[in-house]
Amino acid sequence: MNKGRVESFSDGVFAFAITLLVVTIAQPGNYRHLAHDLGTQWPSLAAYVVSFAIIGIMWLNHHSVFGHFARVDRGLVFLNLLLLMTIAFLPYPTGVLGEALARGAGQRTAAVFYGATMTANAVAWAALWLYASARRRLLAESFPEAERRVATLAFTGGTVVYAASMALALLNAYAFLGVQAALAAYYALAPRYRRAGRGHASGAEGEKPPDEKAG
Amino acid sequence: MNKGRVESFSDGVFAFAITLLVVTIAQPGNYRHLAHDLGTQWPSLAAYVVSFAIIGIMWLNHHSVFGHFARVDRGLVFLNLLLLMTIAFLPYPTGVLGEALARGAGQRTAAVFYGATMTANAVAWAALWLYASARRRLLAESFPEAERRVATLAFTGGTVVYAASMALALLNAYAFLGVQAALAAYYALAPRYRRAGRGHASGAEGEKPPDEKAG
Amino acid sequence: MNKGRVESFSDGVFAFAITLLVVTIAQPGNYRHLAHDLGTQWPSLAAYVVSFAIIGIMWLNHHSVFGHFARVDRGLVFLNLLLLMTIAFLPYPTGVLGEALARGAGQRTAAVFYGATMTANAVAWAALWLYASARRRLLAESFPEAERRVATLAFTGGTVVYAASMALALLNAYAFLGVQAALAAYYALAPRYRRAGRGHASGAEGEKPPDEKAG
Amino acid sequence: MNKGRVESFSDGVFAFAITLLVVTIAQPGNYRHLAHDLGTQWPSLAAYVVSFAIIGIMWLNHHSVFGHFARVDRGLVFLNLLLLMTIAFLPYPTGVLGEALARGAGQRTAAVFYGATMTANAVAWAALWLYASARRRLLAESFPEAERRVATLAFTGGTVVYAASMALALLNAYAFLGVQAALAAYYALAPRYRRAGRGHASGAEGEKPPDEKAG
Repeated sequence: MNKGRVESFSDGVFAFAITLLVVTIAQPGNYRHLAHDLGTQWPSLAAYVVSFAIIGIMWLNHHSVFGHFARVDRGLVFLNLLLLMTIAFLPYPTGVLGEALARGAGQRTAAVFYGATMTANAVAWAALWLYASARRRLLAESFPEAERRVATLAFTGGTVVYAASMALALLNAYAFLGVQAALAAYYALAPRYRRAGRGHASGAEGEKPPDEKAG
Repeated sequence: MNKGRVESFSDGVFAFAITLLVVTIAQPGNYRHLAHDLGTQWPSLAAYVVSFAIIGIMWLNHHSVFGHFARVDRGLVFLNLLLLMTIAFLPYPTGVLGEALARGAGQRTAAVFYGATMTANAVAWAALWLYASARRRLLAESFPEAERRVATLAFTGGTVVYAASMALALLNAYAFLGVQAALAAYYALAPRYRRAGRGHASGAEGEKPPDEKAG
Repeated sequence: MNKGRVESFSDGVFAFAITLLVVTIAQPGNYRHLAHDLGTQWPSLAAYVVSFAIIGIMWLNHHSVFGHFARVDRGLVFLNLLLLMTIAFLPYPTGVLGEALARGAGQRTAAVFYGATMTANAVAWAALWLYASARRRLLAESFPEAERRVATLAFTGGTVVYAASMALALLNAYAFLGVQAALAAYYALAPRYRRAGRGHASGAEGEKPPDEKAG
Repeated sequence: MNKGRVESFSDGVFAFAITLLVVTIAQPGNYRHLAHDLGTQWPSLAAYVVSFAIIGIMWLNHHSVFGHFARVDRGLVFLNLLLLMTIAFLPYPTGVLGEALARGAGQRTAAVFYGATMTANAVAWAALWLYASARRRLLAESFPEAERRVATLAFTGGTVVYAASMALALLNAYAFLGVQAALAAYYALAPRYRRAGRGHASGAEGEKPPDEKAG
């Protein structure tokens, strides 16, 4: 199994899932009072924006993570399919959450459902990382051992954080959505991924590493 | 016709079909009792997961099979389009089966319909293989003659197995779905494909063949 | 504008349009009599199969035609976008035709609408070819002048044939659908495209031309 | 982050969004008077054509703009995701505008909503350009300094023009749609982009620049 092909199939699923999100926004029902109708749908737009950001940032980090792999094997491909399933599924809870918030009914259930999907996603990320990094099975030689342990902690911790976000969902669905956006921003800005994106130059952060293009 | 382009078009169809599966899950109708409503839809989720696994594993094996072809010709491209049609169609019977199971009506008809689609898919696989392998028309020279006969038996047998699964569909739709999952797992784990994925090294199974990247 | 990118964007639209066709098949309404309900929807399946074949074969011939171009320019890119629009639009008349035939109402209107879409498609093909081939603007040097005239006749004639098919649509929608399938088969099997697919070797048909991989 | 991958992910989103537009056209409700029913839906077709042209031309200009970048960094990738979000969202206001015009209700609201989406898109374009071009952060050395200032004016001005188009939306939704088409045509034909597409040869317009293939 060629690594480039797995990445390019994954890119396809990411790009399609992110574009398909738009069909989760319910069509307006009342065109006579369209402004009001669209106004009540702002939670669907908010859920759309959050999910779009989540998938976009995950696509970016997928590249960073795969950039550390020297090769892929059949086990990794299956775990990657599991990961892609949680991403391709996201439009469904996004639509349900947006609609529940817009209707003002079932919000907490919808938020828990969204949180469960994100937790499954975090578990798939952790499983993929643990499989690839255990005994450095698929890691590139240039990937520093110290960073491996930090990343393992972070991926494992991610599953706990997303599971915990479901508790918040039971309290307030809007706060839950805000936390999902904040978590996405964290993964967008986390130094680990920024470093990763620059080809895991461990020492001088400001310098341009020679293998940047491969990152 | 360039082989890389056929593969990359096929990858696109696989990636879109697998992502499009999510639209087959019916939106909840009752947001006041959303937890109950989502609960009754678990068969749709189960059908989604099984179809996702089927398309994902088929994508993987499509690569393995095309990895054995030295070139493609126009006949193969048409048979490949036929194969892609059965895959791109799968979201429809998936949605029907999930909905039938969730409603508790029409389950066996829906399962037979799903089984008929999978049988058509198995026939397309067999036709593609027989066309490409007969008199080694498109096979790479490195592909061992002994394996060719085994593969021909397996592809032909697949059509019988999937046709037989329709009989089970008449008895119990849930058992049918379980068998579909089991068949997908078989194709994921079958030694033939694992070997194939490693570049058809016939002798030393444990060794890393030199042409792995092309597999 | 890089030719490879135009082709790869076009491939994406072809692959996505062909996969999106499945959403044109209406979900069954009556799960208590699902077998009967699915039975009445066979015209939707027939329309699906015909449109799938049309887009698949058009994708194949798009490659052949672009294989004759030495380069692309901005004018060609716009005409290609026009062509892609008629292809990306096809799921809509496909759904309308299938539904009209299944309901037994509006069949002829639906068939004319489908025919109008195919005529627009044929006009786009002709415009693209005339633009690219007039004074051999974008043609590869190896493309024979004699074939250029034949192709111009064929593309121009195609617009007339598809326009004429709309007259048949007024008589019988099923016959119309059959003719669309026959036209697709013609474009699949036409010697011009088979030659084209082999890298426009004009002389020895049986020989394998040296530039086959680029075809 | 590899520039080629960002472009190819973007191409995927462009290709899917442009193809997904077709699902925004409402299915006919009355098959007994299908010709009349399809006739009343012509505004949906018009909105479809305009949005298709907008996304297609934007895809083309996305290539031109990225052709001027020597590299991409994480900041640009985020701004590009923001840009892609406004494009992937376009099918929603397209569907709403077409439906509002077809029903003759809510047209102005729908047009303002469409205009707001296009304004957000123009802002994303301007932000992306300003980020990449300020102090020539990511610009290729060959990109002329004089053109940089012109482009900055044009991108900034674009946000004003699209915001102003919302005022027209309040007067007449059809005129608004016509202006959107005209703006798309302007961006298709603007000399800046035509030059850009030829690899920013600033001097001899008629000559074929040596780096055309990279454009």
